Amino acid sequence: ETGAGQWGSGLCFGAALVGIKCDVFMVRVSYYQKPGRRVMMESWGGRVVPSPSVPPERIYEDMVTETAKKALAEDPNHPGSLGWAISEAIEHALKKPYPLNYSLGSVLNHVLMHQTIVGLEAYKQYELIDEYPDIIFGCTGGGSNHCGQAFPFIKDKLDGKKPDLRIVACEALSCPRLTRPKYIGYDTGDTIGYTPYIWMHSLGCDFVPAKIHAGGLRYHGMAPLLCVLIYSGYHEAQAFPQTEIFEAGRILSMTEGFLTAPEPCHCWAGAIREARRCAETGEEKVIHVADSGHGWVDVRGYDEYLKGKLEVLL
Amino acid sequence: ETGAGQWGSGLCFGAALVGIKCDVFMVRVSYYQKPGRRVMMESWGGRVVPSPSVPPERIYEDMVTETAKKALAEDPNHPGSLGWAISEAIEHALKKPYPLNYSLGSVLNHVLMHQTIVGLEAYKQYELIDEYPDIIFGCTGGGSNHCGQAFPFIKDKLDGKKPDLRIVACEALSCPRLTRPKYIGYDTGDTIGYTPYIWMHSLGCDFVPAKIHAGGLRYHGMAPLLCVLIYSGYHEAQAFPQTEIFEAGRILSMTEGFLTAPEPCHCWAGAIREARRCAETGEEKVIHVADSGHGWVDVRGYDEYLKGKLEVLL
Repeated sequence: ETGAGQWGSGLCFGAALVGIKCDVFMVRVSYYQKPGRRVMMESWGGRVVPSPSVPPERIYEDMVTETAKKALAEDPNHPGSLGWAISEAIEHALKKPYPLNYSLGSVLNHVLMHQTIVGLEAYKQYELIDEYPDIIFGCTGGGSNHCGQAFPFIKDKLDGKKPDLRIVACEALSCPRLTRPKYIGYDTGDTIGYTPYIWMHSLGCDFVPAKIHAGGLRYHGMAPLLCVLIYSGYHEAQAFPQTEIFEAGRILSMTEGFLTAPEPCHCWAGAIREARRCAETGEEKVIHVADSGHGWVDVRGYDEYLKGKLEVLL
Repeated sequence: ETGAGQWGSGLCFGAALVGIKCDVFMVRVSYYQKPGRRVMMESWGGRVVPSPSVPPERIYEDMVTETAKKALAEDPNHPGSLGWAISEAIEHALKKPYPLNYSLGSVLNHVLMHQTIVGLEAYKQYELIDEYPDIIFGCTGGGSNHCGQAFPFIKDKLDGKKPDLRIVACEALSCPRLTRPKYIGYDTGDTIGYTPYIWMHSLGCDFVPAKIHAGGLRYHGMAPLLCVLIYSGYHEAQAFPQTEIFEAGRILSMTEGFLTAPEPCHCWAGAIREARRCAETGEEKVIHVADSGHGWVDVRGYDEYLKGKLEVLL
């Protein structure tokens, strides 16, 4: 399953390299917002369907699921959610006679551990330039990008070596798992309930998020490890409306020259807020940003922003 | 002016960095094929209009030109061409009361010279790995990318140090300036005739190319320096249909993981032809490819290709 398509892209390319097949259920609203990501997955040989898919969208008959039928019975124009897409993918994997495995790209502990390779590299780079971040901003969909960057640094805070280090998880205002969770406790990772229960901050496994362009930040839950750190006060969380994050993306493109995706725009928005505050107070700070992914398939969002037509979406 | 938008993007970002304004006339067919490139230019503060623009497309009244009116009088559905876009841009620059300069991104000698920084770096990289290319493939729109890569190597061929080195300019079959030019001699760089006459292989300054996705390879002429080298037999030229070049792009994405633009897909198509020939004969060769630009704004072309709907367009 994939939201905005980053994880699906990674899976399809990986599958192409080792010669196995990859089927992807892509959250329906992102499927239409970001056709480029679908084309990329297809160019790597993936079969991609919108989740939930309705006729005549059902391109591959063997990818039709009971889950999709249930979602569509609730709402014939269902925009999809990662919860539903995970259920579809698990059902698809379960019912096949041939070996077919489901793969999750975030949330679970082993994914976060794997992603720390990025933070370990960043840690070494700071050593090389004899610096250390005062504050780290990362965007949080399921938590892997943010925690992968931050965990090698949070160790220093837990050890007492860097007690003042601040680590900020940046999420979408319309999907506030960390800043305004519906509850904190056990919930299923998918909507139907195929997954084990996971301890996390959750908006409820049946939460259907607004159609913001940051498709990667629409999940109802959050990585348990990050939730523990938030709950214990080691990490902070901030939420941003999509108008502010596209403004941050625009500022970044004007100064650094690259168009970044709406997801990392959330951490850039946090960094810009902090930098502006420092400019007022005269503080000097090393601000670390965990960027992830370009915005070339998100030009529709940028276009709406530049035309002044972007909705806040709460 | 810009075709597929690469040069326009470079100009807009450069202008943003130094705080000056940038107006771009983008060949009309590419303006609609590649909305991402337009959004990118706009995110850098550029004003972009399709060339030629018709009402209600005339977003900026002060960018309306007599040139566009002439083009539309010829054909109300004019797809545009770089020749017409250059004329529009020059007219726009000429008629302004404030300082406004026109900037060309390829063809002219100084641009080619500037681009050799890329080839000089490649040359040093071969020294570091103790290798030397047997054959160089580069795509040719106006010639700057190809020549920028190849000129530091062609020196060795001209000096007699590497007499067997082959350098192949790869162009679109539907815009064959080098493989089937209409004539070789003096022609204007634009359609209306604002530019000086340039000695080159040309399809005629009024040539309107087919609507292939490789918008950067649709120019009617070619860099004089490259034309001399082709004419003298130092460089070779090959032409490719757009079906073959998207197949090359697909192969590249499956093996290397990145989606490249239709323009450099032409040189990958040449390299793949050569690699397959070598595989048959058992030859071992070092094949150099002058890649340029990602394909994230070209997903429509890839989509048509993957669906089997791509037209050859001659």
